[in-house]
Amino acid sequence: MKFTKMQGIGNDYVYVNCFEETVEDPCGTAKMVSDRHFGIGSDGLILIKPSRVADCQMDMYNLDGSRGAMCGNGIRCVGKYAYDHGIVDKTEIDVETASGIKHLSMKLKDGKVELVTVDMGRPVQTSEIGEPITVDGKEYCFTGVSMGNPHAVVFMDGIKDMEIEKIGPSFEVHEKFPDRTNTEFVEIVDRGHVNMRVWERGSGETLACGTGACATAVACILNGLTDDEVRVTLLGGDLLIRWDREKDTVFMTGPAAEVFHGEI
Amino acid sequence: MKFTKMQGIGNDYVYVNCFEETVEDPCGTAKMVSDRHFGIGSDGLILIKPSRVADCQMDMYNLDGSRGAMCGNGIRCVGKYAYDHGIVDKTEIDVETASGIKHLSMKLKDGKVELVTVDMGRPVQTSEIGEPITVDGKEYCFTGVSMGNPHAVVFMDGIKDMEIEKIGPSFEVHEKFPDRTNTEFVEIVDRGHVNMRVWERGSGETLACGTGACATAVACILNGLTDDEVRVTLLGGDLLIRWDREKDTVFMTGPAAEVFHGEI
Repeated sequence: MKFTKMQGIGNDYVYVNCFEETVEDPCGTAKMVSDRHFGIGSDGLILIKPSRVADCQMDMYNLDGSRGAMCGNGIRCVGKYAYDHGIVDKTEIDVETASGIKHLSMKLKDGKVELVTVDMGRPVQTSEIGEPITVDGKEYCFTGVSMGNPHAVVFMDGIKDMEIEKIGPSFEVHEKFPDRTNTEFVEIVDRGHVNMRVWERGSGETLACGTGACATAVACILNGLTDDEVRVTLLGGDLLIRWDREKDTVFMTGPAAEVFHGEI
Repeated sequence: MKFTKMQGIGNDYVYVNCFEETVEDPCGTAKMVSDRHFGIGSDGLILIKPSRVADCQMDMYNLDGSRGAMCGNGIRCVGKYAYDHGIVDKTEIDVETASGIKHLSMKLKDGKVELVTVDMGRPVQTSEIGEPITVDGKEYCFTGVSMGNPHAVVFMDGIKDMEIEKIGPSFEVHEKFPDRTNTEFVEIVDRGHVNMRVWERGSGETLACGTGACATAVACILNGLTDDEVRVTLLGGDLLIRWDREKDTVFMTGPAAEVFHGEI
């Protein structure tokens, strides 16, 4: 099987071009290739397939073999792969995912895709703005935003040195979140820039979470802390998030990179 | 740069055939390729080079770019690569390392190397047999064995559920070990088989430690707990260790596997 390892701000997947390859057992293959010591090593497997309703399809599997619905960092790499390898010949494309069809706009450099903007859809506010919450006996305020998955955005200083391994799990299972929650810890730099660390439900701290960056930008705007376009600095790199209030949708722009090609 | 990802019981390196390729900056390359999200992902980089004094040379770099001296799991893969790719045409070879020349015996299956035996050299006992030690207020006994690097072997039950993240660091920096120590926690299954977990100095718990398995077998034999040949089950797989008392050297036998080929 030929594959390409790609990453978007450190969120890395094994990509297989299923216009040319066939993967018989994608769940088993995802588990095998994702193992970082015995396999290729990745956050999962993404198959780029033909689609009857869009320019191509993103069929995604997590590292435990379960099916994934959508991944903001992953879909940027799908766009880059599709354009750079001639699957599509335009920079505005639609990609079919298990969460519906997503629109991508790609920006080129030297004839290859450098940045991808993804229409991440409508944000839904799920709590009061700055709702009080007591976690491990300490008072916080959070703003709940769903981007299809649940996020609790908490503004605080000193996130670099915070003990996210202690606080993250306590937010995740707090009684206010019966389905558990992703939690973003956010520090304001200025009205156009914030720093963020994320504790992902079921995964722990990660380098990058696309929906988390979107939820963070929306919460910043709802709290009057930033303008409508926000650069979010995550551990793995930067994403530019813009909440288009007229269309009521969130646009996420970020890099996508090919790391290496291989055969297994 | 063309490379091959190989692993020996989960200890994985990026291997480059320097009979064909040239790596200009091996320290920087090691750091770049080792990164598991932005690079290829590995425990380090091993260059297979021509040697004037042996059949080939193993030039090894850790994931932080520092030079490594020797790795028992790594050198088995060097042997497999050298034979399978025609660098050598015999199954008994000498490999030059920064710790001296090591002799390898390879066992074939379907014309390819399946198992490699490495002469790991002379073990040196560095403590009393079953020397008492108090760690975090609890009494243990350890047997110190050097295989070129220091090991403290501790026999105990229930290693599967032990809190190695708490106990390992306390052994590592105990005053009895001014140069710090690797610590092996070992459970006897029978006179030919033990289970082992290892806390490596500077690295934490790892899937596999070749010198640790050798030190463990020697300590088992010194304590009269096993015969001279011991199967050691590590988290990443099994190694067969034999202490040849006449030659006073330890032979380690284990698997080596190619995972994939790539180009970066």
